[in-house]
Amino acid sequence: MASPVHSPEPALLAALARRPGHHVPVWFMRQAGRSLPEYRAVRGVESILTVLEDPELAATITLQPVERYHVDAAILYSDIMAPLAAAGVGVDIVPGLGPTFDPPIRARSDLARLDRFHPEALEAMASTVRLVTAASPVPLIGFAGGPFTVASYLIEGRPSRDYSATKRLMLADAGLFAALLERLTDIAAASIAVQVEAGASAVQIFDSWAGALSGPAFRDHVARHLRRLAAVIGELGVPSIYFSVGTAHLEADICELGFDAVGIDWRVDLEGFATRHGSRLALQGNLDPAYVLAPVDVVLAEARAVLTASAPAPGYVFNLGHGVLPESDPDVLARVVDLVHDEGTRLRTNALEATS
Amino acid sequence: MASPVHSPEPALLAALARRPGHHVPVWFMRQAGRSLPEYRAVRGVESILTVLEDPELAATITLQPVERYHVDAAILYSDIMAPLAAAGVGVDIVPGLGPTFDPPIRARSDLARLDRFHPEALEAMASTVRLVTAASPVPLIGFAGGPFTVASYLIEGRPSRDYSATKRLMLADAGLFAALLERLTDIAAASIAVQVEAGASAVQIFDSWAGALSGPAFRDHVARHLRRLAAVIGELGVPSIYFSVGTAHLEADICELGFDAVGIDWRVDLEGFATRHGSRLALQGNLDPAYVLAPVDVVLAEARAVLTASAPAPGYVFNLGHGVLPESDPDVLARVVDLVHDEGTRLRTNALEATS
Repeated sequence: MASPVHSPEPALLAALARRPGHHVPVWFMRQAGRSLPEYRAVRGVESILTVLEDPELAATITLQPVERYHVDAAILYSDIMAPLAAAGVGVDIVPGLGPTFDPPIRARSDLARLDRFHPEALEAMASTVRLVTAASPVPLIGFAGGPFTVASYLIEGRPSRDYSATKRLMLADAGLFAALLERLTDIAAASIAVQVEAGASAVQIFDSWAGALSGPAFRDHVARHLRRLAAVIGELGVPSIYFSVGTAHLEADICELGFDAVGIDWRVDLEGFATRHGSRLALQGNLDPAYVLAPVDVVLAEARAVLTASAPAPGYVFNLGHGVLPESDPDVLARVVDLVHDEGTRLRTNALEATS
Repeated sequence: MASPVHSPEPALLAALARRPGHHVPVWFMRQAGRSLPEYRAVRGVESILTVLEDPELAATITLQPVERYHVDAAILYSDIMAPLAAAGVGVDIVPGLGPTFDPPIRARSDLARLDRFHPEALEAMASTVRLVTAASPVPLIGFAGGPFTVASYLIEGRPSRDYSATKRLMLADAGLFAALLERLTDIAAASIAVQVEAGASAVQIFDSWAGALSGPAFRDHVARHLRRLAAVIGELGVPSIYFSVGTAHLEADICELGFDAVGIDWRVDLEGFATRHGSRLALQGNLDPAYVLAPVDVVLAEARAVLTASAPAPGYVFNLGHGVLPESDPDVLARVVDLVHDEGTRLRTNALEATS
């Protein structure tokens, strides 16, 4: 561990700024969660919303993977729907199902329901952030949901496979769709501001379902809201990461939104992506979370391949391509963290030298 | 309708061979199904497997959309798991859930269970094909599942979101995984041979879940089986279509498998794809099925955009980017068919002239 006396720049923040760091940073999406026995021991079966009302518990859960793995970032234990749920606008998060919104958004008059959101509803979230940052040896990443992904839950009313109601509204009433995403961008920005003010050092936008959109749909209906969100985070003075899934077809669009870093899934050819965009963006990813379930030697070989492929990007954060699967073995993830810390810099340097 | 006296080449077969045709052909994946009242009237609630044992009923369902829409192809009413289910190897298709396989494949000894498959088990399927082709004014497309997609059901035991057991087996025992896909390729080939012998004029491989794989995984573990399948279909003397979802990152690999045509989803930029591959491949797609739920004028505008984007590909078949959603309005789909037939050739020609 780096000595606190020297207070070197945290590896995560160096990487996000594309500056040389002490080591290659690593964290895992959903590192706090059901894969950890210490999480299951404290978690209970109630909705995550109940846990989030208890900052001590939420902070404990947030810090568990930092203590276990010595990852380079804590990620706030929360949910992209939590700000709306906390505001009492009708969002629930049902265990075993996911976010619900009843009745779903269908008409312009439904937008008024979102006006009940005020940042004061996020006091528990702010407390959690303060507790975590007071105790954490590494930076805390705050987060918010991408406006399209959050909108899809509000319009579908529940998790969806095909986003048909969302797309129908987008095409049938582009003005209402834009007004909804505008409002959700404001709410995401307010939630992020609360987290940054309370001590978060970086912000990730989770836009998991953006990959359901075609290029024209993303450009016409979604990109400008994300551009505004990136600008807002920039004004707060913290680095921003945009994460999505299944968006290989949106690569050029995503890289022009103005975020400091882009998180990619395992479908994307990391080396090609790093070569094309590494001079302007930091990259994060992209080991397939399902691969973590393989025999440990195979997992480590795949992690080495990811590190090698990342070499063309000066700013790089090791991560999975999506969240940790609940059935993952924490001991395997611990081995991955050690590998990234022990061999990451050497593997990336060797890969660069081999191609130069 | 074209007069049977002149017996012109069916538009579908002309397009798949990249020959000029009488008009732009159109059909819809899952055109026979819950979106049609005449389907719901005959279908009942039992498993599709029960329906497939009744060739008269399966043929009636197959022909319903041909009669209603005057589409340019019938697609056999069946399921990619039907050959295995018919063979009594332990596959079921549970209404509301999907394919199941109990117990799932975990060890090499489990492969022996697939040996109970014999083409004779497909007699009902052959009868259905004979009934359809005797009555249909347009070609019948036979089909089979891609070996990876079928394997994922056998290994997961049920529909999956992350394919973790499938990928774990792929990484932990590549030999067993290869042997399984080898066997499933044989079964797909046998099923296709039965359909072609009974009268099917073209074949589509449905490989919906291939998009869950990274490029290296697709190339190392899946591509060679698909290449063999494409070659087998070629030897049968009928054109082949490879369809997958979310595979923008596998574009180069998919286009080199040896199929005559590639079906793409709405995520793919059709015009770019047509420009890159249209000289070697016929293309099929790619209107977002969710867009069909929009107001009809919007649907028709989007369908026109698809037709225009397809222009660089001499061989082109209009389709959706995935199956018809059950809540689709058949009257809207009928309008799309008419649009493709009435304006398709003109829109494609105009687009070509505008760029030359």
